[in-house]
Amino acid sequence: MAKISDGYDPGPGISHAGSISLGTKDIEKSLWFFRDVLGMEEVERDGNVAYLRAYQELRHHSLVLREQDEAVVNAFSMRTRRAQDVELFYEHLQREEIEAVEIPAGTEKGRGTAVRFLLPGGEHPFELYFDMDKTEAPEEIQSRLPSNSSTRRGLGVRRLDHFNVQTSPQTINQTEQWAREHLGLKRREFAYLPDHPGTLMASWTSVSSQMHDVAFVANRLEKTGQMHHVAYNLENMSDALTAADILRDLDVSFGVGPGKHGIGQAMYLYVHDPGSDHRVELYASGYQIFDEDWEAIEWRPEDFPEGLTWYGDPIDTTPGSRGRDTTGTAGLRNPLL
Amino acid sequence: MAKISDGYDPGPGISHAGSISLGTKDIEKSLWFFRDVLGMEEVERDGNVAYLRAYQELRHHSLVLREQDEAVVNAFSMRTRRAQDVELFYEHLQREEIEAVEIPAGTEKGRGTAVRFLLPGGEHPFELYFDMDKTEAPEEIQSRLPSNSSTRRGLGVRRLDHFNVQTSPQTINQTEQWAREHLGLKRREFAYLPDHPGTLMASWTSVSSQMHDVAFVANRLEKTGQMHHVAYNLENMSDALTAADILRDLDVSFGVGPGKHGIGQAMYLYVHDPGSDHRVELYASGYQIFDEDWEAIEWRPEDFPEGLTWYGDPIDTTPGSRGRDTTGTAGLRNPLL
Amino acid sequence: MAKISDGYDPGPGISHAGSISLGTKDIEKSLWFFRDVLGMEEVERDGNVAYLRAYQELRHHSLVLREQDEAVVNAFSMRTRRAQDVELFYEHLQREEIEAVEIPAGTEKGRGTAVRFLLPGGEHPFELYFDMDKTEAPEEIQSRLPSNSSTRRGLGVRRLDHFNVQTSPQTINQTEQWAREHLGLKRREFAYLPDHPGTLMASWTSVSSQMHDVAFVANRLEKTGQMHHVAYNLENMSDALTAADILRDLDVSFGVGPGKHGIGQAMYLYVHDPGSDHRVELYASGYQIFDEDWEAIEWRPEDFPEGLTWYGDPIDTTPGSRGRDTTGTAGLRNPLL
Amino acid sequence: MAKISDGYDPGPGISHAGSISLGTKDIEKSLWFFRDVLGMEEVERDGNVAYLRAYQELRHHSLVLREQDEAVVNAFSMRTRRAQDVELFYEHLQREEIEAVEIPAGTEKGRGTAVRFLLPGGEHPFELYFDMDKTEAPEEIQSRLPSNSSTRRGLGVRRLDHFNVQTSPQTINQTEQWAREHLGLKRREFAYLPDHPGTLMASWTSVSSQMHDVAFVANRLEKTGQMHHVAYNLENMSDALTAADILRDLDVSFGVGPGKHGIGQAMYLYVHDPGSDHRVELYASGYQIFDEDWEAIEWRPEDFPEGLTWYGDPIDTTPGSRGRDTTGTAGLRNPLL
Repeated sequence: MAKISDGYDPGPGISHAGSISLGTKDIEKSLWFFRDVLGMEEVERDGNVAYLRAYQELRHHSLVLREQDEAVVNAFSMRTRRAQDVELFYEHLQREEIEAVEIPAGTEKGRGTAVRFLLPGGEHPFELYFDMDKTEAPEEIQSRLPSNSSTRRGLGVRRLDHFNVQTSPQTINQTEQWAREHLGLKRREFAYLPDHPGTLMASWTSVSSQMHDVAFVANRLEKTGQMHHVAYNLENMSDALTAADILRDLDVSFGVGPGKHGIGQAMYLYVHDPGSDHRVELYASGYQIFDEDWEAIEWRPEDFPEGLTWYGDPIDTTPGSRGRDTTGTAGLRNPLL
Repeated sequence: MAKISDGYDPGPGISHAGSISLGTKDIEKSLWFFRDVLGMEEVERDGNVAYLRAYQELRHHSLVLREQDEAVVNAFSMRTRRAQDVELFYEHLQREEIEAVEIPAGTEKGRGTAVRFLLPGGEHPFELYFDMDKTEAPEEIQSRLPSNSSTRRGLGVRRLDHFNVQTSPQTINQTEQWAREHLGLKRREFAYLPDHPGTLMASWTSVSSQMHDVAFVANRLEKTGQMHHVAYNLENMSDALTAADILRDLDVSFGVGPGKHGIGQAMYLYVHDPGSDHRVELYASGYQIFDEDWEAIEWRPEDFPEGLTWYGDPIDTTPGSRGRDTTGTAGLRNPLL
Repeated sequence: MAKISDGYDPGPGISHAGSISLGTKDIEKSLWFFRDVLGMEEVERDGNVAYLRAYQELRHHSLVLREQDEAVVNAFSMRTRRAQDVELFYEHLQREEIEAVEIPAGTEKGRGTAVRFLLPGGEHPFELYFDMDKTEAPEEIQSRLPSNSSTRRGLGVRRLDHFNVQTSPQTINQTEQWAREHLGLKRREFAYLPDHPGTLMASWTSVSSQMHDVAFVANRLEKTGQMHHVAYNLENMSDALTAADILRDLDVSFGVGPGKHGIGQAMYLYVHDPGSDHRVELYASGYQIFDEDWEAIEWRPEDFPEGLTWYGDPIDTTPGSRGRDTTGTAGLRNPLL
Repeated sequence: MAKISDGYDPGPGISHAGSISLGTKDIEKSLWFFRDVLGMEEVERDGNVAYLRAYQELRHHSLVLREQDEAVVNAFSMRTRRAQDVELFYEHLQREEIEAVEIPAGTEKGRGTAVRFLLPGGEHPFELYFDMDKTEAPEEIQSRLPSNSSTRRGLGVRRLDHFNVQTSPQTINQTEQWAREHLGLKRREFAYLPDHPGTLMASWTSVSSQMHDVAFVANRLEKTGQMHHVAYNLENMSDALTAADILRDLDVSFGVGPGKHGIGQAMYLYVHDPGSDHRVELYASGYQIFDEDWEAIEWRPEDFPEGLTWYGDPIDTTPGSRGRDTTGTAGLRNPLL
């Protein structure tokens, strides 16, 4: 007899992008940005490490800020579908001969055991975890809605949305393919490099109904494992306008935006944490993918500028240019290389 | 070796609410409403049957309008995850001794074979299908974005969002439980009847990351199988304001809204198709559920009014009252009975 | 030779509603509401008196909060068109045998000489002034835009918009007529009491291009000189949704809204300052009147409910009812008496 | 006894920018744009001339489209404050030895007598009128709100907002000064040319509470009397996003936007009528000026880019550049020359 799907696979699986651990040279400035400006809750502080979450996140954190010499990304963390999947992934990585380490529970406060490894190709530090405490916010900021942990504050970011990671043109195909085969990410939209058909310029992949949980983009890199940006979700596109208005007035350097991506149909606003210079995208709306047989959309190079910027402040795609948004996690160059 | 999840289960599964077939006494009025006002595309017309879709839907239709004597719902159709799941569900229903019939391909234009049965308890006509043609829109309304079938028009509904079905207090528990066990729907938020703890007043369930794909609500019914409403999705909450403005000016009877649900955190605007009197919800934003271990949120009766209306035009919850929104699919009575 | 208009009249004139002085029983609670929640700047504090302004106001204040036993309105202050108009109005009032007193400069901090009198009929305390200091905000909240005094904060109110004052059915006609003849306010929209044609139920009047700077509404009063509400302006209708969301979560009692008035076409959200219980309207958009020969729009009683609530949370117009919004400045009863 | 201001001056005055008459080489394309896309009502058609208005305009028209060989602006028309002002302005122009002609009633359908003259310096054809018919819309599009002539349709432009006219650096000071002295326009914000202190680069002037009814901008011109753009007003900033989305999909060339001006604080979206190539601004929100003693804000050259684009798609201010928005009424060059 055919068993009716219970939404669980026999193999391990990923449910979503869960949290990110960012190095920052100036944690007070970063806290000012993420907590006081974006409106996140500082859930816990442990010496030079702070744990934050957005108002729609019920668990302990989606952001770890660690004061350290180099403002690198310490970990891109994804939540597994089931508790046992962390161990199953660990075993799987070993069989694949990928170096993996177990991170004991509590290494990140509030989080259970995780497995850590470098993404083959891009060498981005990924961590897979399942257990994370459900934490009540202090009473004075608690939300009266049970699906929110706290009231909406600041610019109103409500949850971590996705990661965008950078790889070199030499490794992007390998990296993306590995992530699809071994993390269950599905390709949703993509483009090849103009002069290298078959070599990805960018690929947007997801395991959830979001158009992307993880995007991969080819770039000229200074080092491996670089992020392009981490995105936090806003309730409405109009929130991105309000955010732009306030960030401009606070003179927080923002890279590009607001504008609407043709790829994914969401509003973007790229801004830099002044403490770490990491690039953060404020992201709103976009389309959902429910079909299991979604066919990945290919963008031709000539249409790609519209894919990046359907309307609004344009993301520069001139070859060789570094655009206006030159600082940040990766010293972003042009996506068309 | 543990197999990494490929997003497919060994058993059959549902991916989302795909389309609805509505009876209408006046198809021209219904087409005026859905096509000319809401902005949907009339993809095909076949005598007294019209097929429509919203601008973000790439397949043949999400709405069937059939002119007939009684404005009932002819079918709530859900798409399966895989092609073989239609047959697997059919076999499963037979083993469960639930009467099921196979609907041949083409019975609904553009659609493949489906299996039809009545939901045990509520007796709502459900159909499960997988194949549906990808249809190009006529050139003059084609979108330049590959993830849209046509340009945004009218009030800008972009895709079918969810169904809300009515059952009696006597059958709601059975109906909802069956749907969870046999269709893979997971309970997300719910409330018990004030004086009957353990008897559901309403339950919001989903198989996708949406807070609900199908909601179940207890009501005093005139007949079985009644719908409460079908929802179409808008890009932003501000679109619901524009919709309300225009619908008021067109004097299209609208039930309730705009307002924001505490349950699901989405904007609502309930309006009635003047051809069929079916209730349609224009629905925007809301929160996403990515965690596989989401714990269903229970609403106590005393908080339930805020759950229905967090802010905005209030949904009446006075016991015995029929509220202001008395017409429509079900002759809606009060949700608190 | 005809002199070209320089925008100045030979007689004195009013330019706009400039500020309001509110009594409050709990100034700390009121400051929490106006400063911390609505986002106004506390410009100056003088014992039990606080001066505030919104981010688009360049002069010293538009709101005075005074801690006192009775939470009445101490003054509705309107700015004159020219410096000499304050004295000219004083002389005019004396000729009209209306008791008027000169309020010395500095009585309200930052403000020049004003003339104070009670509106004939309604007995609302009005003050007319011209001089008010242009005050720079502290550097840490200064706006980089020269047309804003400070950055947008909190719920983002940007300027005082209008007053709505209550009179009795016995005095409303006299009050409104006096204000039109002697303050230069022009009637824009109005309604007569259902059973008393010729007796105003409400009248919206302005001297600027706004649909109203001062509204008059008939009510059963506990005392004379009562306010119905004071309105602060928001940049967009979507800001009213965000405000409603946050105010609900903070459990700040809000009367009615959000919704859109048919009269004036603006979004409303009525909320009560928890310190004083004064009713404050958050007000967005609306239409402008530029024509000098605008013909006042009359609302028939049967259309009046749509005039108050075009869409959204309905303002109760049932005769005799006190609606849901029963507290506040006036112990509001139903506008239809 | 001092007479209380009745809002009328002894001399003639202007109340607002009332309508514009645009030449177009292809009236059908222009009608598609203004009527079918922007949503204006075609009130009357008279051979090769069409009269249109937006939904919040109660009088006959705010836009005249005339099919002719050259797509120039035929007239910038401003409404006077009183009926007698048209004749008074005529007499005044004669005394000032400015050539003026009387345009008989009905030359523009629905309009009374007007006086026509060229703006000294810039030579823009201005017409001053007072009488214009109040016209009821056909029943099928009539609004149920008495302050609207028709229902909101298309992209929802609601009224003509302002004119922006171009002059040469040699004539801008004379033109702007004349308009201030003889039309009663007041300077609100302005900037001098970077290398020519004292020579205006741009000046925003108004007679109403809008930040500008007429803007003047210096440019390298191909001929005199050129427009930069005419602006239509939208209810909310979010409407500009929806407009951008739809215009992009219709592949209507849009120059620049959406973005927010620092100068005036309003949202902009510049788009070109495909029939005439005239530039039209869709304009939303912005601040109001009520004070008679408003001090004009000067923008230093180094801040001017932020004045043009506070956030969003940037208006190019590189000297010598023609930006991306090179077509249109004037063959726009860079505002910094």
